[in-house]
Amino acid sequence: MSESYPFRFGGVVSTVIFRGELPRIGEILQREGQDFIVICDEHTEFLARRLASPSFEPFSPLVLPSGEENKNWEAVERILREAARRGLGRDGLFIGIGGGIITDLSAFAASIYMRGAGLVLIPTTLLAMVDAAIGGKTGFDLGGLKNFAGSFYPASAVFIVPETLEGLPEREWKSGMAELIKTAVLDWDPSALDKLEELDKLEEIEGQSGPALFKSSRLKEALAGAVRIKGALVEADPKETGTKRALLNLGHSFGHALESAAGLGKLTHGEAVAWGMARSCELGLELGFTPAERARKITGLLERGGYEIRVPHPAAPDKERFMEALSGDKKKRGGLLRFVVPGKKGAELVEYDSRVQSYLEVTFG
Amino acid sequence: MSESYPFRFGGVVSTVIFRGELPRIGEILQREGQDFIVICDEHTEFLARRLASPSFEPFSPLVLPSGEENKNWEAVERILREAARRGLGRDGLFIGIGGGIITDLSAFAASIYMRGAGLVLIPTTLLAMVDAAIGGKTGFDLGGLKNFAGSFYPASAVFIVPETLEGLPEREWKSGMAELIKTAVLDWDPSALDKLEELDKLEEIEGQSGPALFKSSRLKEALAGAVRIKGALVEADPKETGTKRALLNLGHSFGHALESAAGLGKLTHGEAVAWGMARSCELGLELGFTPAERARKITGLLERGGYEIRVPHPAAPDKERFMEALSGDKKKRGGLLRFVVPGKKGAELVEYDSRVQSYLEVTFG
Repeated sequence: MSESYPFRFGGVVSTVIFRGELPRIGEILQREGQDFIVICDEHTEFLARRLASPSFEPFSPLVLPSGEENKNWEAVERILREAARRGLGRDGLFIGIGGGIITDLSAFAASIYMRGAGLVLIPTTLLAMVDAAIGGKTGFDLGGLKNFAGSFYPASAVFIVPETLEGLPEREWKSGMAELIKTAVLDWDPSALDKLEELDKLEEIEGQSGPALFKSSRLKEALAGAVRIKGALVEADPKETGTKRALLNLGHSFGHALESAAGLGKLTHGEAVAWGMARSCELGLELGFTPAERARKITGLLERGGYEIRVPHPAAPDKERFMEALSGDKKKRGGLLRFVVPGKKGAELVEYDSRVQSYLEVTFG
Repeated sequence: MSESYPFRFGGVVSTVIFRGELPRIGEILQREGQDFIVICDEHTEFLARRLASPSFEPFSPLVLPSGEENKNWEAVERILREAARRGLGRDGLFIGIGGGIITDLSAFAASIYMRGAGLVLIPTTLLAMVDAAIGGKTGFDLGGLKNFAGSFYPASAVFIVPETLEGLPEREWKSGMAELIKTAVLDWDPSALDKLEELDKLEEIEGQSGPALFKSSRLKEALAGAVRIKGALVEADPKETGTKRALLNLGHSFGHALESAAGLGKLTHGEAVAWGMARSCELGLELGFTPAERARKITGLLERGGYEIRVPHPAAPDKERFMEALSGDKKKRGGLLRFVVPGKKGAELVEYDSRVQSYLEVTFG
């Protein structure tokens, strides 16, 4: 099995490749003899080692400490210095293998190494496959702000391989599923949501989960669908200067505020986004954008997925604190407070107005 | 007086604006009420303060320490944190006013701030006007390597204003003149060099120099010519993936090696480039690319400009060390050892071959 989805982000072609097994270094390099560095964390080091080609000299991956608290400039500098020590030039290749933190850090380092070196990513969490590794956003945290510094720098190739999901903790799995549901909502083809419902049932009936499900090809289809949607939105708006890419923030304004109000690191990104999507459905219903039937379908998927979607979220019972975080997020991002809500098909961007205000007051007042 | 030269670098329009006097903040902002931060060093703080608009709240520029040794991540982080403290969003504006170090640092910080904020540059040295502030290269030093990390991020506007050159030390002035000569060599119109010869005479006859010369409009013409040439080469090859932008490295392979061999900071960039251009003329003569008449004209300009062009350069008498630096530069940059030499018109890119090797052996053996 090998399927390729090439996208054009700005002037750059970025190809997402679904493969049955991990590629070897020899297959990853863009040309023979290219210098490279493999970046991983302690959880993905064993996968990084599997990239070794039998016919090649053995290589040592650079192993960074895992965790959001290590997504900082120090990590970026370690990558840059190690690449320099290994003699990489601008024509060298950075290969990041790991979850979203490793792919974001590797991609950012590649983007500034001699003003831009080669980049290939191998996401190893469902979340990174659906979201972080696709579309060229890179970054790291600074001064307590998530992804405060970064760049737009798409990988030339992103390899998606089931075996990398082996051993992914259940909670991480759920975190990725929330983004998968989100992307299905954005799909203009409403059957995308039905397919996820089937997947849901399959999981119940056959007791399959994780990589097994992936191999069963249903999940792979859903994932390919998500990649296709995200790719199309990013192609239409590579640097989020328009309104297309913003649609990917469905559930995120509410979700980010929930993460802040609960304390960073308490909830997974997916848990926060799932809760945020439930709010977006309520708001969309209130404003007349979201048909009731569609809102029920989405919240049904979220409930069966085991996500907490009640107000207030038990991890952030203080509604006032939540509202502060919601307006703080707006300030931090320097933009308007905008929401994305499910439409009849796909999703719609909604500006803050008196009706939005009234929904917020009723719900969080 | 106000002349604008718009360039298209990749997908971005970057306009170089020659003005009679410094613009005020109100004229610089891209829209009313835009948040901004002004970045300068202790030499340009007085100019930064002149940007204040009478009708605006007063502002405090961020004053960074000057000097190559301060062109580091710490400086970048200071800019990022200060911008965050002042509440700038992605739609905020970074205004860098200073020499190449300040414009490079400001531009790099803007390029990664929330993945890219607004950027306007006001170069205050001849070198930054001809080179650093034009064309989108940003960067800082890391691990002893100059501009080792960076990005391509053109300013939306670059203001070139004579009064900023007031008090520019003679040596800095000479450093910029070398780049001005270099760019005139790259010009396909051979009269560009003749114009510099006239400028040269004017300086001798009238005893004018620096800003006075600028105001006399001869230098302004030369500068506008240089901006036009650099802009055209960058438009043709914004990220140096082709061969056009590499022509701007005329004199730089030799010059960088000289800087290294002499010890970083001993020579100005222009002094090193001038010496490198003399070598490029010799090499071009040797290979039959550079007509003797043209080589004489260029070295004549360099000599009258007061540049040291003998071999070995008194600051780096050890030829072996120079040759090591020359091949080290090649490794560091991860590319081939290539040279740019003056052609009949403009310049030509020359790959390393046995004839180049023989020139190097005869000259530095």
